[in-house]
Amino acid sequence: MGTIGLAVIGAGYWGPNLVRNAQATPGLRLEYLCDLDADRARRVLGGYSTVRVSDSLDEVLADPAVHAVAIATPAKTHLPVAMAALEAGKHVLVEKPLAATYAEGRELVEAAERRGLTLMLDHTYCYTPAVAHLREQIRSGALGDIQYLDSVRINLGLVQPDVDVLWDLAPHDLSIFLSILPDGVVPLSVAAHGSDPIGAGRACVAHLTLQLSGGVMAHVHVNWLSPTKIRTMVIGGSARTIVWDDLNPSQRLAVYDRGVDRVADDIGPETKAQTLVSYRTGDMVAPALPEREALRAVMAEFQASIAESRPPLTDGRQGLRVLSILEAASASLAQGGAFMPVLGELVAEVSA
Amino acid sequence: MGTIGLAVIGAGYWGPNLVRNAQATPGLRLEYLCDLDADRARRVLGGYSTVRVSDSLDEVLADPAVHAVAIATPAKTHLPVAMAALEAGKHVLVEKPLAATYAEGRELVEAAERRGLTLMLDHTYCYTPAVAHLREQIRSGALGDIQYLDSVRINLGLVQPDVDVLWDLAPHDLSIFLSILPDGVVPLSVAAHGSDPIGAGRACVAHLTLQLSGGVMAHVHVNWLSPTKIRTMVIGGSARTIVWDDLNPSQRLAVYDRGVDRVADDIGPETKAQTLVSYRTGDMVAPALPEREALRAVMAEFQASIAESRPPLTDGRQGLRVLSILEAASASLAQGGAFMPVLGELVAEVSA
Amino acid sequence: MGTIGLAVIGAGYWGPNLVRNAQATPGLRLEYLCDLDADRARRVLGGYSTVRVSDSLDEVLADPAVHAVAIATPAKTHLPVAMAALEAGKHVLVEKPLAATYAEGRELVEAAERRGLTLMLDHTYCYTPAVAHLREQIRSGALGDIQYLDSVRINLGLVQPDVDVLWDLAPHDLSIFLSILPDGVVPLSVAAHGSDPIGAGRACVAHLTLQLSGGVMAHVHVNWLSPTKIRTMVIGGSARTIVWDDLNPSQRLAVYDRGVDRVADDIGPETKAQTLVSYRTGDMVAPALPEREALRAVMAEFQASIAESRPPLTDGRQGLRVLSILEAASASLAQGGAFMPVLGELVAEVSA
Amino acid sequence: MGTIGLAVIGAGYWGPNLVRNAQATPGLRLEYLCDLDADRARRVLGGYSTVRVSDSLDEVLADPAVHAVAIATPAKTHLPVAMAALEAGKHVLVEKPLAATYAEGRELVEAAERRGLTLMLDHTYCYTPAVAHLREQIRSGALGDIQYLDSVRINLGLVQPDVDVLWDLAPHDLSIFLSILPDGVVPLSVAAHGSDPIGAGRACVAHLTLQLSGGVMAHVHVNWLSPTKIRTMVIGGSARTIVWDDLNPSQRLAVYDRGVDRVADDIGPETKAQTLVSYRTGDMVAPALPEREALRAVMAEFQASIAESRPPLTDGRQGLRVLSILEAASASLAQGGAFMPVLGELVAEVSA
Repeated sequence: MGTIGLAVIGAGYWGPNLVRNAQATPGLRLEYLCDLDADRARRVLGGYSTVRVSDSLDEVLADPAVHAVAIATPAKTHLPVAMAALEAGKHVLVEKPLAATYAEGRELVEAAERRGLTLMLDHTYCYTPAVAHLREQIRSGALGDIQYLDSVRINLGLVQPDVDVLWDLAPHDLSIFLSILPDGVVPLSVAAHGSDPIGAGRACVAHLTLQLSGGVMAHVHVNWLSPTKIRTMVIGGSARTIVWDDLNPSQRLAVYDRGVDRVADDIGPETKAQTLVSYRTGDMVAPALPEREALRAVMAEFQASIAESRPPLTDGRQGLRVLSILEAASASLAQGGAFMPVLGELVAEVSA
Repeated sequence: MGTIGLAVIGAGYWGPNLVRNAQATPGLRLEYLCDLDADRARRVLGGYSTVRVSDSLDEVLADPAVHAVAIATPAKTHLPVAMAALEAGKHVLVEKPLAATYAEGRELVEAAERRGLTLMLDHTYCYTPAVAHLREQIRSGALGDIQYLDSVRINLGLVQPDVDVLWDLAPHDLSIFLSILPDGVVPLSVAAHGSDPIGAGRACVAHLTLQLSGGVMAHVHVNWLSPTKIRTMVIGGSARTIVWDDLNPSQRLAVYDRGVDRVADDIGPETKAQTLVSYRTGDMVAPALPEREALRAVMAEFQASIAESRPPLTDGRQGLRVLSILEAASASLAQGGAFMPVLGELVAEVSA
Repeated sequence: MGTIGLAVIGAGYWGPNLVRNAQATPGLRLEYLCDLDADRARRVLGGYSTVRVSDSLDEVLADPAVHAVAIATPAKTHLPVAMAALEAGKHVLVEKPLAATYAEGRELVEAAERRGLTLMLDHTYCYTPAVAHLREQIRSGALGDIQYLDSVRINLGLVQPDVDVLWDLAPHDLSIFLSILPDGVVPLSVAAHGSDPIGAGRACVAHLTLQLSGGVMAHVHVNWLSPTKIRTMVIGGSARTIVWDDLNPSQRLAVYDRGVDRVADDIGPETKAQTLVSYRTGDMVAPALPEREALRAVMAEFQASIAESRPPLTDGRQGLRVLSILEAASASLAQGGAFMPVLGELVAEVSA
Repeated sequence: MGTIGLAVIGAGYWGPNLVRNAQATPGLRLEYLCDLDADRARRVLGGYSTVRVSDSLDEVLADPAVHAVAIATPAKTHLPVAMAALEAGKHVLVEKPLAATYAEGRELVEAAERRGLTLMLDHTYCYTPAVAHLREQIRSGALGDIQYLDSVRINLGLVQPDVDVLWDLAPHDLSIFLSILPDGVVPLSVAAHGSDPIGAGRACVAHLTLQLSGGVMAHVHVNWLSPTKIRTMVIGGSARTIVWDDLNPSQRLAVYDRGVDRVADDIGPETKAQTLVSYRTGDMVAPALPEREALRAVMAEFQASIAESRPPLTDGRQGLRVLSILEAASASLAQGGAFMPVLGELVAEVSA
């Protein structure tokens, strides 16, 4: 396959980043920036661009020069826009979340699989050098058994008009978890607590607790109201623990040879628990990571997955798993924080 | 009243700090360091001390030169040791938690109130300059309405033989909350999630969500297994938000004039939520705080509350409130994370 | 005057940034990207641009649609390229340093002044919100009298083929100093110490000490070999001291009400010096600063200074002052670190 | 030899730390705290101590139970106090600097060597785990050849009545340098620049540049007027570079496998310098270090050097080397910043 013709749909907050990175990706040819507001699209492209502007999705999808679309429109429009693209035979890259509901997301996954088209999620963080390193460290066993995961994603954020803070921010954390967890460690149930102290009509501060298979607990803290910005994830392992501070470019990852080990199983009843554990207090290593823009890697993966007719790293099914967790979290919120099961089964059935 | 004779009971982890600070507090006279292991007590005092060592609580309590005791023994011994002291007519300063259970704690509070003796909790953090500043800022209204509280207290900690991480660490956060919250904002219910990934037999990682009156949510994250140490508390307010980083001595408190405000109540249905809120992005002020050892202030308050026959800042009732939250948290843990009511009523009834 | 036609000369390290920002600046029209290597220029523009590429400076300067040029070529070419532009009647924005020598720089300043053309230095840092705030705080008197300046600019940097670390990095610090110092506080002499521990043939680590009028000392530390990156400037004042950490986006500036004050002039000989001073230990304020790209403001100032026929904030004379300090520093390096006078007089005489 | 009887001389700023650590050191027996102001000494000891107070140095030195003294009096008194102790046959530990002048220091070194008594400097930093690690890394060759040293020691400090900021603070940096440098790398000359912006009568801000043998440059920046505290040292090496941030207890040392290497010696004249160097951008390792009080190790070394009749790690000759650098620095300050030779020869001749 030769160069892949691309249209970016949506010239709002994220669209300009797609435009910029698409233009820099070998194997892609940006044909259109499409937005209902053509002036907004023109402003995004600026006064020196040869890229075409369109305010008609139909026009764009009818153009045989367009082989793929990258969608950066509001979540509730993902189903119609992406479905139209798939029905027109276009490959689709879509912003997180995949769709406004699990049911809608499933429609898209099924439609893409039926047609053999690429459906990829722009889970941008999954393409950072940090996540790539985390994944490799975890899957190689260097961390040992996963003991806990903890993610904090707080800042003074835009209070979204249609979704709460969980649906806005937690897809980042959840897609990272799914991207790095070893095979067989999957979310089983989720509990969510939230509050809306400014009267916005939806949770602005929330905590998510995930029960993973194997008894591992993961926690996500998201907050739109924090005056300070924190983007930190800790992945505790039996052999190493990694702390990822995404706002510290000179030391994003810190791999600690520190931890608590249980040293005996068979011990008399009188022995104190302190004697059961020992403490490792070894060195910390901050691995050298390349500095590259993650969205560039997203675009390269989209191009490659189409060119090679293979599923992308963050495919529709991963997007669907995120939706299943978010829906369970919303159900938990509505029911006062009880643990709700994550719909793992349905995901597996999709293409059955 | 003249100088108050004091005995420190317990020469373990915390006792040496009590010894050192008691010796430096005007109005106190340290008479004894008492421990079942007299050699341990002698080692704590060192080779140059005139303070007496005793391995007999009875001996110490029988000495009329002793007017007060400071207890730093394991929590499960607080009831018998403190009760013996109260029955001997001694004032009592006790390490957190007040007792091993709410019922035991209530016995101590009732006994002290019946006898008109001081029963004070060594909630050390409540005596830091940072907490004094927080309390003043909140109670003066400078923060506006409290919107949320968030506390993180994680590090590579000693896995305790008899209590889980909630009972070990959360008393700090809970006593701070109780010490700074405005009148009328009280904990109503609590949910707790925990995990024990090293097989220690008790939770080593835990999250606590508190529902406070007025719809405010508070969250506490405690963890014995983290390779890095974090001691951070955020108190979000409608006018200001304070971030307290206790490990940053040059800037422990940061007061942000940043936040999200709701700007309209009566708005047509078509208006987007974004138009409902506005963002403040003002300056940050890091107030100058004195550097002083909090335990020195604890000792001074103990001395003063006895000398002035008044309740201390952190009295037995505050200790009891902490126990009521911890017991509700343990009940929640046992029941899979459901919210459990905090026994606010019983506290109020104690001396009725 | 209508839209100003611009050509960017040089498609190397910095040129792409000029291209991007020129395209986004109202009142500018980017006509050419000019480089001896036309392919390099084409790669910089990418596959979607309407901007023309030229490998001929003559062609560009001959085009009446070009009113101004922005030069991002090696320093030693600044004289011929900028002079050709001025002789063709074009306004000039030039990368730091203005030229390879003070004498060459003076030629350019004289040529521009003779023709009434704008000659502006791209001293990018002078257009950051941080420097704007510093300048305002200093010139308003809020800092009191300047007591000292200290700048550290170290990182693992490119060892330049033709200039040492002083000529490469110190122009940033020196142009910032010149931009913020109050009227009448000027550099009088400079001493430089340097070393070349890797055998690169030029200083890779250097320290610059400036004697300013009024007895103020300023110091600059530049280093190409440091594994960590530091960009910190401290400006000590009698009333406030500002610390600027350019790598801390959440708190670039910190204004401290802390310092040492002399409290008595007329004191007997027996009084100790400690009694002569008092210590202020007040709050720190981190002012809210807008986040904007400094180079955007550079371009806007270039456009405005041409449109309004007024000198830009960082004009050729400021560039010449930087050269006079750098030449004195090189002379000091050559003479073992002795203080060398800065050629303040010649600058004043330029257009006499 | 049995337990060594010790007297601490001076109950001012540092004396209490000596008292506390002496009491905790096996093999030492604290006999006296001696101060002209006996009340001050009594306050330091507190109300529970068996240590004797004396206001008479003669009394203390006449007591055969006293085998050694630790002197924490003003620098100008070091000569008479230490000399009296040596003449009385006592071993001496003395605060930095060894004496008020090189000549005085030399008298003490000669007197101690003549009598075979220990003369040790309390160069406290030399006993930190960080310096021990640095020394080991450098001397083992792990850092490769030393390329540069850079130390920053600034904070809001006490303006001393009798010495400038160089004599007050730089002894720390200089003693650390002397303690870690490989054999044969010694200071040859020093230049100093200083300023006194508050009119204190002595330099309050100063920069010291040291030329070491082998062409290595070391730099020290000391400042009493900085509102923020910095304690950072960088030791650049051809194989590794270490950054020591003493105010970051969780990561005091960072060992970087990052740097610039020269890759060719024999290269044609047309080759650009960029091709001569290559860049390493490897991992960073933060070694686990024990947390211990350095002064405890000072006391242990004093005890051991006496007990084992061997020179201590920081002996009088090291103190004398520090004085020779300080005197050269003062001479440079007085002569406008010229490089002044360091008196290395005289040190070597001391006991000849």
